[in-house]
Amino acid sequence: MAQTTLTGGKEKKSVAEHMSDKQRAISISEFFTKNRHLLGFDNPRKALLTTVKEAVDNSLDACEEMKILPEIKVFIDPTTDERFKITVEDNGPGIVKNQIPKIFAKLLYGSKFHRLKMSRGQQGIGISAAALYGQLTTGKPIRIISKIGPTAKAHYYELHLNTRTNEPEIIKEEEREWEGKDHGTKLQLELEGKYHKGKLSVDEFLQFTAISNPHTTIIYRAPGQEAVEYPRGSNILPKEAKEIKPHPKGIELGMLIKMLKDTNQKTLQGFLTHDFSRVSSKLAKDICGKAGLYEKARPSRIARQEADNLYKVIQESKIMNPPTDCISPIGEDQMLKGLKKEIDAEFYAAVTRPPSVYRGNPFQIEVAVGYGGNISSDGLAKVIRYANRVPLQHQAGACAVTKSVVQTAWRNYAIQQSRGALPSGPLIIMVHMASVWVPFTSESKEAIASYPEIIKEVKLALQEAGRKLATYVRKKKKVAEEGKKKSYIEKYLPHLGIGVKDILGLDEKEEKAMLELLKEILEKTRK
Amino acid sequence: MAQTTLTGGKEKKSVAEHMSDKQRAISISEFFTKNRHLLGFDNPRKALLTTVKEAVDNSLDACEEMKILPEIKVFIDPTTDERFKITVEDNGPGIVKNQIPKIFAKLLYGSKFHRLKMSRGQQGIGISAAALYGQLTTGKPIRIISKIGPTAKAHYYELHLNTRTNEPEIIKEEEREWEGKDHGTKLQLELEGKYHKGKLSVDEFLQFTAISNPHTTIIYRAPGQEAVEYPRGSNILPKEAKEIKPHPKGIELGMLIKMLKDTNQKTLQGFLTHDFSRVSSKLAKDICGKAGLYEKARPSRIARQEADNLYKVIQESKIMNPPTDCISPIGEDQMLKGLKKEIDAEFYAAVTRPPSVYRGNPFQIEVAVGYGGNISSDGLAKVIRYANRVPLQHQAGACAVTKSVVQTAWRNYAIQQSRGALPSGPLIIMVHMASVWVPFTSESKEAIASYPEIIKEVKLALQEAGRKLATYVRKKKKVAEEGKKKSYIEKYLPHLGIGVKDILGLDEKEEKAMLELLKEILEKTRK
Repeated sequence: MAQTTLTGGKEKKSVAEHMSDKQRAISISEFFTKNRHLLGFDNPRKALLTTVKEAVDNSLDACEEMKILPEIKVFIDPTTDERFKITVEDNGPGIVKNQIPKIFAKLLYGSKFHRLKMSRGQQGIGISAAALYGQLTTGKPIRIISKIGPTAKAHYYELHLNTRTNEPEIIKEEEREWEGKDHGTKLQLELEGKYHKGKLSVDEFLQFTAISNPHTTIIYRAPGQEAVEYPRGSNILPKEAKEIKPHPKGIELGMLIKMLKDTNQKTLQGFLTHDFSRVSSKLAKDICGKAGLYEKARPSRIARQEADNLYKVIQESKIMNPPTDCISPIGEDQMLKGLKKEIDAEFYAAVTRPPSVYRGNPFQIEVAVGYGGNISSDGLAKVIRYANRVPLQHQAGACAVTKSVVQTAWRNYAIQQSRGALPSGPLIIMVHMASVWVPFTSESKEAIASYPEIIKEVKLALQEAGRKLATYVRKKKKVAEEGKKKSYIEKYLPHLGIGVKDILGLDEKEEKAMLELLKEILEKTRK
Repeated sequence: MAQTTLTGGKEKKSVAEHMSDKQRAISISEFFTKNRHLLGFDNPRKALLTTVKEAVDNSLDACEEMKILPEIKVFIDPTTDERFKITVEDNGPGIVKNQIPKIFAKLLYGSKFHRLKMSRGQQGIGISAAALYGQLTTGKPIRIISKIGPTAKAHYYELHLNTRTNEPEIIKEEEREWEGKDHGTKLQLELEGKYHKGKLSVDEFLQFTAISNPHTTIIYRAPGQEAVEYPRGSNILPKEAKEIKPHPKGIELGMLIKMLKDTNQKTLQGFLTHDFSRVSSKLAKDICGKAGLYEKARPSRIARQEADNLYKVIQESKIMNPPTDCISPIGEDQMLKGLKKEIDAEFYAAVTRPPSVYRGNPFQIEVAVGYGGNISSDGLAKVIRYANRVPLQHQAGACAVTKSVVQTAWRNYAIQQSRGALPSGPLIIMVHMASVWVPFTSESKEAIASYPEIIKEVKLALQEAGRKLATYVRKKKKVAEEGKKKSYIEKYLPHLGIGVKDILGLDEKEEKAMLELLKEILEKTRK
């Protein structure tokens, strides 16, 4: 065995001691700088898309918090061959002064992580990651101006993110006038990027966003082009998504222990009824009883073994599923409207499944399909994925949605499919997952993790849409075959006539009568 | 436009002020607790696998640091129906006392992140994540005992991870005797898990690990079974991977600015030559000159605009590619040995590509294929992926390797393939990426991110292996067809003989001679 001279006793430094010298903490900003692809900044093209996406997501969320119809401006201006200035402005509620630095220049900071409510953002990473990437590639700060009401002054900031401490560094701050603006936020950052059109582009993102957010007006200026307005198609705000408390069956033992320590409630019964959804006073008392715990016990005094018992009793108790009215689906009508506006197909169908639950989190799956028409028929079906109304463009292969589409037996629905592949033919499949918490496969929020409950629901929705589709496709195929047969009869009947006329010596009139009769008989037998 | 009563002036709270109350920082441990699927703890099955994987990876890395042949023990013992105690013990260098708590109970802590060196671990997350998951699901601490030399005392710890602060909490610590052990580390943790065999199992992980690490002995006890020893097949340690400095073309402007601030070097020239690879004193001086900077300038005094110039000059300069002897590939011979040991095929081929570079990081791709024999022929090809000798089992769809396999035109190599799918037939494809820094698509390190340079190299390796394979498959097909033709001749020739004999009135001898001649002619024309 190859021992080095480094090992051994106290005189020399051991390998362990040598290794120890190199151990150190890694700041979250350093981690994500090195792993910037985890945040969606793999390359200049994607960086441009991710930045626009994070900014637009935040703006839409903010407008919905304020219950206001969103109007979002997105400008992309080239500054050099490889750099772009991105400006995103909204008419949302604005951000109070002292929050601006942390929201835009600190990773893992925000209001959406510590709650269960359907929203586009959820991690407190996205927009600060864009600022970090801009800083990394151009050295320039992110600029923000925000105004919270008609009589308030606007606040202007230029910010860097200190990657060692993950704290904002204020380069400049001042009060400013923002003429003609009641409230809203505008951000601007410069980054190394690459603009392209078509698949996986910013243009595609905004088009898909318009499909899933018909209540939004978007004004978009692509590099070197005129600004284009995508006006809203509807003045109705989506149904408000409600915040809910965690479901007792959706948390792990460790989380229960932590919640017991952190609660404001004075009794175990109060803790169970107030800090969770679907636990009545009676149920709380029952659970305490079965766990051998006094319902008036102080939550912070519960020992680990007692918590373990409590956890077990919760798992065995019958508890109503979490409330599902907290989710705001797009809806079958709106999905069809969106799809019809953007895609020219022959046939459309949409399905909104009833809400379901994974890890205690309510979620809801919706599917819409378009078939035929102008959709290209000589390739794989196109799958458009959404999570909480946000289009997911990258990482299709990693997504539970793609897996569900591949695992669905499309041949049952008269659609071609090779083993292990997407279905093929003139087909577009749109899938939306709405949830208080979407489990993404990475911080860049590009693909949904493959929880079995989610895959099951997506498949059920696809099957339901598939059945609708199959009826149409089979009918269409039958009509096509009928047409083919009919054209055969019409093509060959005259020749038959000539033959029969010759053999039997019929005259023209007899031949015509015979052909009429023959045609009638043939058409009857076809049915 | 729907304005709420909340908006407006100073009297009432604005929406922005309401939202501000909810803003707060998210600790990295809270983030990963909620997003535990990012770390590979999606479900109990995967949790078991990920825990074993992280512990074994660390043990193998540690043994290689010490240049010692690894001997790893992995025991999985059920404690209840849903909980398992996992024990992993190695003969590595051990860990010094004061480092133990942070290494096992603090996310983002370690020695491998801040260097460029090929190793299995690289993030400083894995084993603490396993400890966190154990704590989350069972409330129990991780237990560690470690010894750094024959005369040193062993140190024993029981640790929790404080999810609010991301710091270790020491439950117990003491000096212990560790009889019969010179040095090494043993960890033990209890978690909610599910044991299964076959695909994606711990058993599969250890089998695949044995293929790529023939110098390792593994002793494995699966739940409720006898311990099994997988003895090493080779006493040769892999070539030592060397640590390198970053390549000047592999870093972004922001990183350059940060390095300028952090360097110990007193001059710009010194900074460029000492803190990067492949920059000679002369090249450094040239770069400074072209950037309009004095080569003796203090690095910390370089302004942003000057750094920008420096960055541009670096991009335009001719700089040798980074050294590639820092990578330790498995090698064609060892890959074939590993594959032959575990897979019973008719044909094997292996390809080790020359090293290449992405984002300044050297990497190297290796491919081995097995065809025919006992490999199932009625499904898709099986793809086994490795990164720095670690098998990647989950997230195949998200991986650059899978994408490269799908995008390769296997029909060119006589292998069937449907559009957009893996090739099919009795085929196993093993792909290894070795690099000083593997870009994973998530913290769970299950799939390699799709950098174009990586996809290109994998495809080239697959094509090279494909050509070798095609020669064999085509020959085999030809032999099969020959055999078929030959059997036709032998089958029909006697009948032909009887016919010809009758027509021409030949005797038996003449018939026999004629048939011999005919057979000879037919066989000749077939060639």
